[in-house]
Amino acid sequence: MINKLIENIRKTDAPIVVGLDPMLSYIPEHITRKAFAEFGETLEGAAEAVWQFNKAIVDAVCDLIPAVKPQIAMYEQFGIPGLQTFKRTVDYCRSRGLVVIGDVKRGDIGSTSAAYATAHLGKLQVGQQTFTPFGEDFATVNPYLGTDGIKPFLDVCREEKKGIFILVKTSNPSSGEFQDRTVDGRPLYELVGEKVAEWADSCMGEVYSYVGAVVGATYPEMGKVLRRIMPKSYILVPGYGAQGGKAADLVHYFNEDGLGAIVNSSRGIIAAYKQEKYAAFGAEHFADASRQAVVDMIADINGALAVR
Amino acid sequence: MINKLIENIRKTDAPIVVGLDPMLSYIPEHITRKAFAEFGETLEGAAEAVWQFNKAIVDAVCDLIPAVKPQIAMYEQFGIPGLQTFKRTVDYCRSRGLVVIGDVKRGDIGSTSAAYATAHLGKLQVGQQTFTPFGEDFATVNPYLGTDGIKPFLDVCREEKKGIFILVKTSNPSSGEFQDRTVDGRPLYELVGEKVAEWADSCMGEVYSYVGAVVGATYPEMGKVLRRIMPKSYILVPGYGAQGGKAADLVHYFNEDGLGAIVNSSRGIIAAYKQEKYAAFGAEHFADASRQAVVDMIADINGALAVR
Repeated sequence: MINKLIENIRKTDAPIVVGLDPMLSYIPEHITRKAFAEFGETLEGAAEAVWQFNKAIVDAVCDLIPAVKPQIAMYEQFGIPGLQTFKRTVDYCRSRGLVVIGDVKRGDIGSTSAAYATAHLGKLQVGQQTFTPFGEDFATVNPYLGTDGIKPFLDVCREEKKGIFILVKTSNPSSGEFQDRTVDGRPLYELVGEKVAEWADSCMGEVYSYVGAVVGATYPEMGKVLRRIMPKSYILVPGYGAQGGKAADLVHYFNEDGLGAIVNSSRGIIAAYKQEKYAAFGAEHFADASRQAVVDMIADINGALAVR
Repeated sequence: MINKLIENIRKTDAPIVVGLDPMLSYIPEHITRKAFAEFGETLEGAAEAVWQFNKAIVDAVCDLIPAVKPQIAMYEQFGIPGLQTFKRTVDYCRSRGLVVIGDVKRGDIGSTSAAYATAHLGKLQVGQQTFTPFGEDFATVNPYLGTDGIKPFLDVCREEKKGIFILVKTSNPSSGEFQDRTVDGRPLYELVGEKVAEWADSCMGEVYSYVGAVVGATYPEMGKVLRRIMPKSYILVPGYGAQGGKAADLVHYFNEDGLGAIVNSSRGIIAAYKQEKYAAFGAEHFADASRQAVVDMIADINGALAVR
């Protein structure tokens, strides 16, 4: 899947990913009204509204982008119907040729991590039959439990040619509380980055590894160092736009080959119509606003890459 | 819920929790056969088998124990039908008076962590209606992202009187890779423990806090230190039994009041009939084997507590 991701990035010339992190408050009223009319003011109704919202955005932007990143928490909060919409979104995006990064931040140990890997990247055998539980292409994984938590994911990645992005340095203000603490004279996130590089070596695609890393756009100096520590890992970069990360800050997350990073925007794309800049589209044409926001984001990032 | 947990522990005189972490390989053939006959060799069939297995065990042990801890990964691997069984198990256990600890190890930031907190501990508003997505009493949470990841859980805990157990020192062999690294002369897990104590102070029940911690049974010396660092936090202790933790090692996880810790066993209870010790029960009477294993575990732990 890392090869497919790179192929998609090359084809679209767009090292970006659209975060499908729907909140009810993002969804235009004409969509929720219709969903509630059909399913009532229920979890099913909310999940239907999310699905219609996602589908319209995916249809509007899928020719421009290589990948999407649905954030499972936003679906899990709607219970079972929400997770049905998550699965439906994953399937639909894959059918449109997009690579799907499940932002699930799972992480446990041994057979439990193996179960998460099966759920999101693998296949499950039931009697003589084989099933794909959620079927994303990549999953994000939390490293706090160490190799015991990561290894079961690596096994599934190798078997299924799928991938993971391991949290190294997250984009949030308090990410430094533990991640930046100094260990043997160096911040913890560098040590995590070194382990990522080790895991990445053991799980290579053609040029890049199936094992990538998450490094927030909001810490560009750290991104520069981590780029060097994990040369074969794709970096998934959250924090662009709404969280404050600027395109010019992101050039050092890329390698000399122009590859190596994929920048996420969620709210900035899916709720674009709520921004003053795109307000002229109106709520009825929210998906067109999202398309324009994608065009602008690609230009912004490629512009910064061109002058580095 | 911390008050209810303590009340349940006092009533049963059993500071233990049964981990409902079903694997298909644990489930006796007569149960899977019946489930597959009804639903086919499908995810639905597997999820039905898990449900029947869980229900039989819960019915057999619920008068002896204060709480259960379903591990959501084991359900997530069966996709949507698996998560339906997770929800059904949570609801059923609560209806039997048990406190339910959702072992979900979630953790993200801001609105995403808030969505996870809603999913597992909170309520969701859809239009004029309010829904409980999964409705556990406690959830386990990963601290790697810092306060931004924890605070949304604290807000829901205060509002709903529910609780969390934050991963501090996990039971697995490689937990030391990051958790034990020395920061300012002290291991990282102690710093995490100090933050837990801070968060716990801000979220108190009657005597103990809504904010607890996970500390593995396999590291008793660290448990002793962490007990002191987090005096008001309940410690959820995995790693007893199958992973090698012994009752005598666990006495220091408890406070002088005899409270403060709850010891988990999963495989050792739910797959007891597969052990030589309980083989005489046979697969048909697997739930009776689980009951005997619970009786033995309570005696083992209370025996160790009595002589400390």
